[in-house]
Amino acid sequence: MATNPAALAGPEDEAYMRRCHELAGRGAGSVSPNPMVGSVIVHDGRVIGEGWHRQYGGPHAEVNAIASVEDPALLRQSTLYVNLEPCSHYGKTPPCADLIVEKRIPKVVVGCLDPHEKVAGKGIAKLRDAGIEVTVGVLEAESERLNEAFMTLHRKGRPFVALKTAQTLDGRIATSLGASKWITGDESRCEVHRLRCFYDAVMCGASTVMSDDAELTVRHCAGRQPLRVLLDRRLQVPVEARIFNSEAKTLVFALRSEAEPCRVSQLEARGVEVVTVGESGGGLDLAQVFGELHRRRVLSVMVEGGSRLSAALVRAGLVDKYHLFIAPKLFGGDGLASFGPLDVVHPDCAVKLNFAGIQRFGEDLLLEAYPIP
Amino acid sequence: MATNPAALAGPEDEAYMRRCHELAGRGAGSVSPNPMVGSVIVHDGRVIGEGWHRQYGGPHAEVNAIASVEDPALLRQSTLYVNLEPCSHYGKTPPCADLIVEKRIPKVVVGCLDPHEKVAGKGIAKLRDAGIEVTVGVLEAESERLNEAFMTLHRKGRPFVALKTAQTLDGRIATSLGASKWITGDESRCEVHRLRCFYDAVMCGASTVMSDDAELTVRHCAGRQPLRVLLDRRLQVPVEARIFNSEAKTLVFALRSEAEPCRVSQLEARGVEVVTVGESGGGLDLAQVFGELHRRRVLSVMVEGGSRLSAALVRAGLVDKYHLFIAPKLFGGDGLASFGPLDVVHPDCAVKLNFAGIQRFGEDLLLEAYPIP
Repeated sequence: MATNPAALAGPEDEAYMRRCHELAGRGAGSVSPNPMVGSVIVHDGRVIGEGWHRQYGGPHAEVNAIASVEDPALLRQSTLYVNLEPCSHYGKTPPCADLIVEKRIPKVVVGCLDPHEKVAGKGIAKLRDAGIEVTVGVLEAESERLNEAFMTLHRKGRPFVALKTAQTLDGRIATSLGASKWITGDESRCEVHRLRCFYDAVMCGASTVMSDDAELTVRHCAGRQPLRVLLDRRLQVPVEARIFNSEAKTLVFALRSEAEPCRVSQLEARGVEVVTVGESGGGLDLAQVFGELHRRRVLSVMVEGGSRLSAALVRAGLVDKYHLFIAPKLFGGDGLASFGPLDVVHPDCAVKLNFAGIQRFGEDLLLEAYPIP
Repeated sequence: MATNPAALAGPEDEAYMRRCHELAGRGAGSVSPNPMVGSVIVHDGRVIGEGWHRQYGGPHAEVNAIASVEDPALLRQSTLYVNLEPCSHYGKTPPCADLIVEKRIPKVVVGCLDPHEKVAGKGIAKLRDAGIEVTVGVLEAESERLNEAFMTLHRKGRPFVALKTAQTLDGRIATSLGASKWITGDESRCEVHRLRCFYDAVMCGASTVMSDDAELTVRHCAGRQPLRVLLDRRLQVPVEARIFNSEAKTLVFALRSEAEPCRVSQLEARGVEVVTVGESGGGLDLAQVFGELHRRRVLSVMVEGGSRLSAALVRAGLVDKYHLFIAPKLFGGDGLASFGPLDVVHPDCAVKLNFAGIQRFGEDLLLEAYPIP
């Protein structure tokens, strides 16, 4: 699929695409595991229709945008903008590409291709075969990032994994005595709650939960409660721990060979589900863990890792995004490192990231970064 | 000294004070250990004179500004802006306060007081005693920061100490094998050279010099070469090391009890001066080191610290400013920590900083921070 945005797209195309992104964002939290999609229809420099995918299973953005146009006759001289390639297959709704052809819309501008194996360029081909002029790749990177979890699902066949850490400037997540409450300020901790809403699941290791009695719920803002995922190989976290309370669902992964049936029963009696997996590299087999979450249609996971879990994810190449809160403090080299050993021998072999954004929350910084493959 | 800027200062006062800062900055690198001072004279909303302190020992900013006014008769209806309190004593030049009184300038707006024991409010008092309307504290914080080294000299009786580190996101300055070339990118390293020009001296420990063969000169930009200061308790750094080359002067501090005379002679034969000091806390007595630098009229030092030196400075409360370069990389917990142990037991006891600025150099971030007393 040739994408040549530079030749065809103008600043007005980008402005309409940005509007698609805004509309798409309104579906955040309601459409997963579907992607967030927005669509704008423009006639003679004027927006005559808008729509977005509102709810999982509901009509797609293009359908809603077309339905919102008052005078359907104008569609034959209009351009339809949409941040994701129109679908070409019968899913929960009929193919959007067919509807666009049927309505005789002469021009379509697309943000990025749909990596879903049933679409993946077939939607564009269907439009072009019908004589429609199609531009692909307007604000392509932003369009992909908007649905980064959805992209990961279809490209890697596993949930999108974001790693959140809260550390001092010198990379410490606890003092020499293991104390970590609090490193970051109120504003950062509120932002963590806001971030949790965007993910289908939040994940934590047993040692972090035991040292903090972390509840892992969304509290300081409105939003859905993500699934809580606890990695606890020996089922050591006590059943009274707050992570097992009834505020949200909890799923525990334990080691098949070490999970005692009586502990499993105790947890199940509290409504907590326990899944056992095999061992890999001295810990739970993370591929099995994320495989199971994938089967449960968990599209995205935010891991609030301790030293060991964070390093294990990095070593396994499983981190798709980093949310790094940095407090303007020093704990010193006797504090607990934010990442366990990574076996980097030479600086050129470092795990390399790309800073994507910097925000300030109170006294702290939040750095957003992506791994460089 | 009452400072009540809110009641008296308007946005135009701040604009003129900002101009004073710009003019003052032209003296950077030429006026130390004097402060950088700029002055603007405004008549009826129009700038009629400007001046700055150009050279150590030369006329002060106010003198130059007054001399630049074409029609001296206008001075009697003008306002003089200056970022630092006019001096009231005979130093290398006569007191500026006397000149202002003599010229009958009716109004003076001052950025901040001069902490010099011979001035410290006396300049303001002299002006007010002569019936001049004086406003103090316009852009006070910025005015103090502009001459932060000078302020430290007079308030603490020692050089201003800035600590520069170049670390990974997870707070590492070398890999598990001790390799550190390079953590940050070209742009950051150029910026380090630019920063060196602003300091009278750069300081490094023996282990850092030996692992990197650091030259500690200004190379990638134009500027004066600061004094190189090497802390080498046992005089272990070999005489062929680049830090002893002829590109700049080098001063070595060694432990009185461990500096072998033959090693001292070898260094002196290369034109390197060696000063011996006592021991404190298992290392060189830093108070003696900075005391000696103070005696030599070194106003400011940028320490390019390794783990141990950085921690020792922090523990001694000697760091006045931080230049923290952060590369978007991870080395992992088996890498070398940017700071040695700081004995922080509880998060509330952390060494607390204030982020003052964030800049991007290539892929890296430069965080500027100040300690919170």
